[in-house]
Amino acid sequence: MNAPANKREFPLAQVYGLLEPGPVVLVTTARAGRANHVKGRAPHVANIMPMSWHTMMEFVPPLVGCVVSSLNYTFEILRTTGECVINIPTVELAKKVVGCGNTSGRSVDKFKTFGLTPVTASVVAAPLIAECYACLECKVMDRKLVTRYNFFILEVVKAWIDPRRKRPRTMHHQGEGVFAVPGRTIKLPSPKTSFLT
Amino acid sequence: MNAPANKREFPLAQVYGLLEPGPVVLVTTARAGRANHVKGRAPHVANIMPMSWHTMMEFVPPLVGCVVSSLNYTFEILRTTGECVINIPTVELAKKVVGCGNTSGRSVDKFKTFGLTPVTASVVAAPLIAECYACLECKVMDRKLVTRYNFFILEVVKAWIDPRRKRPRTMHHQGEGVFAVPGRTIKLPSPKTSFLT
Repeated sequence: MNAPANKREFPLAQVYGLLEPGPVVLVTTARAGRANHVKGRAPHVANIMPMSWHTMMEFVPPLVGCVVSSLNYTFEILRTTGECVINIPTVELAKKVVGCGNTSGRSVDKFKTFGLTPVTASVVAAPLIAECYACLECKVMDRKLVTRYNFFILEVVKAWIDPRRKRPRTMHHQGEGVFAVPGRTIKLPSPKTSFLT
Repeated sequence: MNAPANKREFPLAQVYGLLEPGPVVLVTTARAGRANHVKGRAPHVANIMPMSWHTMMEFVPPLVGCVVSSLNYTFEILRTTGECVINIPTVELAKKVVGCGNTSGRSVDKFKTFGLTPVTASVVAAPLIAECYACLECKVMDRKLVTRYNFFILEVVKAWIDPRRKRPRTMHHQGEGVFAVPGRTIKLPSPKTSFLT
């Protein structure tokens, strides 16, 4: 499969560096089939949900643990299809991100409403979001804590990045619609790839 | 119990706003008893471990899921004592944070080596770190995923914050010793406390 137009494949072993800083992400799911955006159909096939409660759990293969509320439209789709894409937006998309969080896929086609572009993924049925600088195709690989905590463990099976974005300004939610945006970057000597776990 | 000198009690319902943005934290544990800092004793009673793989899992009571590698000295202490403190450092402490990550509590008294001050906690035996702007006393409340993923679920039972720190500059690890530091903050209208999960 060819890379999506504005993306190139990103090494799975480096995925932790995208999620470990804690950005808000947009989770896309597809209710059925590979049709990513069927106009006029309700409930709409593909959906978008902002998410901020996630953590890396393993480097390779990259595992991501995340909470998806059972009240959300995305929950049941993720549970049954076992697939999603974690898309990482930058601050230029802030209004769209908040819009996606304040609406439900039960009644709104979020791709259409917020002017986001679905792109066919490589491995999963859920679409990538073209406007996001990085997109991680994921499969649910452990559901043990779904019933008790709404906690899914995902394996990242394919990763894409926009190589033109040198300093992506991600969004970090502090609560009640307030987001911190990264400013400066510092580098300290560290003998290990990631000494932090 | 009185609040530690430079801290005041922080509402548990607001704890998510401290961790959701994804800062590096310092996890303190105490191997035994309430003695936080016994000079000259090895292995030392209290230890400090940087951690970046964590996520909120519930608002109230606040639940935090986190990965602690079984290779780390902290792992066995956390597993057996079932207690820790999540301390949130700011960028002024960057060198100390990285130092704590590049040494092991098996051979180093990190409080002494890095000039950090242990403060007796309210509920747990592990000490708070005085220099950190927020400190969350935690108890392990679910060990189901510890064996498979080194994943602990903690309940925050008491929270402290330094009210003088108005715009704490947290550290967000991007891998290989590179950290993003929050710059500007944006606010968007959001009808819910936290629309993101």
